[in-house]
Amino acid sequence: MTKNIRAGVFGASGYAGLDLVEILSLHPKVDLIFATSNSYAGDPVPGACLRFVRADDVEFDSVDVIFLALPHKASAGMAKRGIDAQLKVVDLSADLRLDTPEAYERSYQTPHPHPELLPTAYGLPEINRANIAGADVVATPGCYPTTALLGIYPLLRCDGLQPDTPIIVDAKSGVTGAGRKPSLTTQFAEVYGNLAPYKTGRTHRHVGELEQEAHKVNDRIGPVIFCPHLLPVDRGLMSSIYVTLAGSLRSEQVHDLYTEVYEGEPLVDVLPLGEQATLKHAVKTNKCVISITPVLERYAHITSVTDNLRKGAAGQAVQNMNLMFGLDETLGLI
Amino acid sequence: MTKNIRAGVFGASGYAGLDLVEILSLHPKVDLIFATSNSYAGDPVPGACLRFVRADDVEFDSVDVIFLALPHKASAGMAKRGIDAQLKVVDLSADLRLDTPEAYERSYQTPHPHPELLPTAYGLPEINRANIAGADVVATPGCYPTTALLGIYPLLRCDGLQPDTPIIVDAKSGVTGAGRKPSLTTQFAEVYGNLAPYKTGRTHRHVGELEQEAHKVNDRIGPVIFCPHLLPVDRGLMSSIYVTLAGSLRSEQVHDLYTEVYEGEPLVDVLPLGEQATLKHAVKTNKCVISITPVLERYAHITSVTDNLRKGAAGQAVQNMNLMFGLDETLGLI
Amino acid sequence: MTKNIRAGVFGASGYAGLDLVEILSLHPKVDLIFATSNSYAGDPVPGACLRFVRADDVEFDSVDVIFLALPHKASAGMAKRGIDAQLKVVDLSADLRLDTPEAYERSYQTPHPHPELLPTAYGLPEINRANIAGADVVATPGCYPTTALLGIYPLLRCDGLQPDTPIIVDAKSGVTGAGRKPSLTTQFAEVYGNLAPYKTGRTHRHVGELEQEAHKVNDRIGPVIFCPHLLPVDRGLMSSIYVTLAGSLRSEQVHDLYTEVYEGEPLVDVLPLGEQATLKHAVKTNKCVISITPVLERYAHITSVTDNLRKGAAGQAVQNMNLMFGLDETLGLI
Amino acid sequence: MTKNIRAGVFGASGYAGLDLVEILSLHPKVDLIFATSNSYAGDPVPGACLRFVRADDVEFDSVDVIFLALPHKASAGMAKRGIDAQLKVVDLSADLRLDTPEAYERSYQTPHPHPELLPTAYGLPEINRANIAGADVVATPGCYPTTALLGIYPLLRCDGLQPDTPIIVDAKSGVTGAGRKPSLTTQFAEVYGNLAPYKTGRTHRHVGELEQEAHKVNDRIGPVIFCPHLLPVDRGLMSSIYVTLAGSLRSEQVHDLYTEVYEGEPLVDVLPLGEQATLKHAVKTNKCVISITPVLERYAHITSVTDNLRKGAAGQAVQNMNLMFGLDETLGLI
Repeated sequence: MTKNIRAGVFGASGYAGLDLVEILSLHPKVDLIFATSNSYAGDPVPGACLRFVRADDVEFDSVDVIFLALPHKASAGMAKRGIDAQLKVVDLSADLRLDTPEAYERSYQTPHPHPELLPTAYGLPEINRANIAGADVVATPGCYPTTALLGIYPLLRCDGLQPDTPIIVDAKSGVTGAGRKPSLTTQFAEVYGNLAPYKTGRTHRHVGELEQEAHKVNDRIGPVIFCPHLLPVDRGLMSSIYVTLAGSLRSEQVHDLYTEVYEGEPLVDVLPLGEQATLKHAVKTNKCVISITPVLERYAHITSVTDNLRKGAAGQAVQNMNLMFGLDETLGLI
Repeated sequence: MTKNIRAGVFGASGYAGLDLVEILSLHPKVDLIFATSNSYAGDPVPGACLRFVRADDVEFDSVDVIFLALPHKASAGMAKRGIDAQLKVVDLSADLRLDTPEAYERSYQTPHPHPELLPTAYGLPEINRANIAGADVVATPGCYPTTALLGIYPLLRCDGLQPDTPIIVDAKSGVTGAGRKPSLTTQFAEVYGNLAPYKTGRTHRHVGELEQEAHKVNDRIGPVIFCPHLLPVDRGLMSSIYVTLAGSLRSEQVHDLYTEVYEGEPLVDVLPLGEQATLKHAVKTNKCVISITPVLERYAHITSVTDNLRKGAAGQAVQNMNLMFGLDETLGLI
Repeated sequence: MTKNIRAGVFGASGYAGLDLVEILSLHPKVDLIFATSNSYAGDPVPGACLRFVRADDVEFDSVDVIFLALPHKASAGMAKRGIDAQLKVVDLSADLRLDTPEAYERSYQTPHPHPELLPTAYGLPEINRANIAGADVVATPGCYPTTALLGIYPLLRCDGLQPDTPIIVDAKSGVTGAGRKPSLTTQFAEVYGNLAPYKTGRTHRHVGELEQEAHKVNDRIGPVIFCPHLLPVDRGLMSSIYVTLAGSLRSEQVHDLYTEVYEGEPLVDVLPLGEQATLKHAVKTNKCVISITPVLERYAHITSVTDNLRKGAAGQAVQNMNLMFGLDETLGLI
Repeated sequence: MTKNIRAGVFGASGYAGLDLVEILSLHPKVDLIFATSNSYAGDPVPGACLRFVRADDVEFDSVDVIFLALPHKASAGMAKRGIDAQLKVVDLSADLRLDTPEAYERSYQTPHPHPELLPTAYGLPEINRANIAGADVVATPGCYPTTALLGIYPLLRCDGLQPDTPIIVDAKSGVTGAGRKPSLTTQFAEVYGNLAPYKTGRTHRHVGELEQEAHKVNDRIGPVIFCPHLLPVDRGLMSSIYVTLAGSLRSEQVHDLYTEVYEGEPLVDVLPLGEQATLKHAVKTNKCVISITPVLERYAHITSVTDNLRKGAAGQAVQNMNLMFGLDETLGLI
């Protein structure tokens, strides 16, 4: 019996951090060694036999891998320290997702804190598995890019989209997607009974990441028109995707295509034709669930759903760790 | 001082019926004479000094106008009786919205119960005011067509849409839109924490109505791709509309166009550029609230929001009544 | 036709302040002159043709009455300035509710900022109408004391409670009761799906106020055991009250007693025996709704419900203003 | 390695049944053989590699134990068949909870269908463990009695309650407690934003069961005044309990008493003094979580929380099965 992987979580009192702790605590091949939180240092960690410690009090040589659920800009520096200490690093922030410092500065309006770390392996296993398996550092994708990319990947791969026509992504996210820091926008009485679009018109920071990765698979696609909405639920993310098909593909063939492409994927479910993916299919699971509706001859409507804190963050981070350590990819996840 | 209009409401214990009663009870020129409910006959009517009566026990000559918040198929017969009794009739069901019996049968899979009543004036005042004012019978539109049509009307009118490209309508509705009859789909624990697409792929009954009315304004448009979602709130409806503009129109001009077209409309608000329409803008009001986001040069994202029970049903019904009786259109509504 | 009352609202961007603005804007005898908000100065006031102004920029001689929806400690100073300017003052904060500086310091752990203003008329009209009518300054009660006091008042008045036995008040409040300032406790994802007791064991600040006013009506009662809970809804407050009756009263007589005491009260509804008061009875109204359940011979269970922002704050403040200016008490409220 | 227990679930498509399936599917010592549902026969069972079968199509000799998540009256007959087939039976209905047919008829207004089965072992392990371990049939308690009994048990056991004073139980339950059958009361738009007391004044069917079991521990207690409320969440149950202590006990001693009594109990957590039990402590766990607040010298306020579908139903049923088969009591539950 081999020894367990020793893991540490930075930023463990945020919503993604708390889910990470929950998953890692139950993972059969992981010992969770520490969980940092500067605000809650000393308090018990929910679901684990640990107390939160300050990030500065952590010893890097006590672990084999660190998970970074830190704000962007703070995360890259900690990744650097982890790399220098020869640890594996799974970053959940935005710091390592974009391939160039220029792209980062364009999306985040600030110079990249550690440009020497770019590019990093992009941690979406269903699209980029080979690169993740051999990597020491992996950038776990954002929740929006995860659902949208998985929702269009089969069409990208088979050249199934009509060039020059936009890919419409109408996305809806539960409130934990906005993080745990108190703000008026995420106050209960502001969200309750409401539905609110925000960062419309390609201004959301995830648009750059989404197009970067989509173009790696297929560079003959039109622009992504992406609009996120704040949904009055705690967790769950739905991307409603509307596409125009290339002349070579009829809408009634799309479901077969998706079924085929995702056939061996344990964490992507394509529902039978006629069944619709809903938040409940994915919430509290580590899966992405997809349904397909053919519309007329040339269009398709794809619904792609994840739990924003699981397949959209913590679950996918652990899936990446499993790959990096040569474990069964779904260990601790199903 | 002229005498008040005497009004009766059929189907008053459903959600739209209850809102109708609430609005009419406070209307300065209306006396609410009766409110029918076969299930609750004898019970007090919330918000009014009345008791529900059975539909069969009503005397038609006690009123000047009847509102029909009845299921489709039942409604047309009652409309017929109202017309025969020389009353004004405001129908909230689907029975009189489609222009031909054939179109009705196509959408509702049943022969039209009173084909002789078709076509009826379509009760969307902002588009069809003149016809409503002179009509004895008006078909109040469905909640989905109302928000979608108001959301694209300025573009239809000015030939601003690229022909042959689809109009994407991703719609989200509060649960009262499904009516008050108990069903598993609308049980609390099924809806809570969920978001669910339904009747995708142009199968929703409102698609025919929506295209019929859109084509009357402009017949050179592409197909409507419409997908409704059940939202875990009680009331409110958002249509997120994505369009490709005609070559003659740039996306940055769209906001001016909407502002101009809706300038004199008391019940349609176009928000300033940069502000987004949310459910809270419209819930418990009788208005439609619209925001515009230009996307690149050729695309626009329009958010159109109503309260599905108000501008999407009861509020618009009273707006129609005001027009039919020559009153100020907004009386009792703002 | 007499001139309208000119009113100003301080702290108008909080939840109670926003409801005040909504009520006053529709009040037939009030002109709303200003609404202050230091955070939102310059922004349009929702539901009114005004923009928020900074509190310092207000001219006291432009109004006849000021409403103070300010935090405690800040409110008393502004009340003083209003009194000095010979305005009527309706305070919604806790500053003027307790009769002595000592009681204030006991509940609020800080010296009273203006002890010379105490005692002030306690603004619960159903119990203290005569004093309010003649007052220049009125302290509008807290939401919890309002529902609890109205829920036990008839029993207090008729000596119906067994001395030395506790009055149990299990209270549940919507989240707006905690104010609009962002905090982790009131973040959406913390409240959603939860129910949480807080400030248990007579530690809530409203206990002193509640017992002070109860004792004025009847000083032979036992202690109040009060436990508030945070409820996952935006507005509405329910006090579930459990009492032991005096030997002279049988539980089956309690409903008649309440019906009689509240017979002439337009803003208190006692439901028929067997019907239960729910949040929906009171939300968005300015009423308190009460139901009575006799339990065995000697006990009664009373449910008292208000909208915490209406009868529990803004609505009652306007009710007090109506009384202070000799208007019909319910003007603008029903 | 011993063979796994073969289990079947009757009534598996209700809310408690679905949770049972979820727990049993992950249980390391159980093979789930069948799950019945007459309405969904043929459909896949969520979370299990099974399809629902009709109850009539089940073979009793394929299993070692049956779980009955059936309506009362239907359940007893199936229990009888299970006993006759020499299976172990874990009943989740109300049929076997009361000790006599007379008590059953009093609470359920119908003759008991199988009086020969009474009395049955009452399946609340923390109070009745020894009897459960040796039983072939166990009646799993209702969700309300479970939280209330665990909330007062230490006081019952040590004679800590003042005789003749009532035990107040103000209870709040999530909507799944009402079952999955559609009804107006549990429709989304009726529950949303509401809080509603129901079956007040000792009329709820669980009062008899609660008092029966409380009296077995201590027959010198006063009446239970029990009022349930419907809470706008899907799952979770809180009992807020208010008691008067016997002269021999001071309120500050109560927390120590509870800590001591529940020290060895793996599925009951007593929170540290000052911390309050909330729904989130218990939802989706199989535990009961309790907090204690001393009030003055003689009173205590106890908050007892469970997940109504887990410790209040399915979790406790599996806890009982573990005991009946001599397994570790918490297997599959933590």
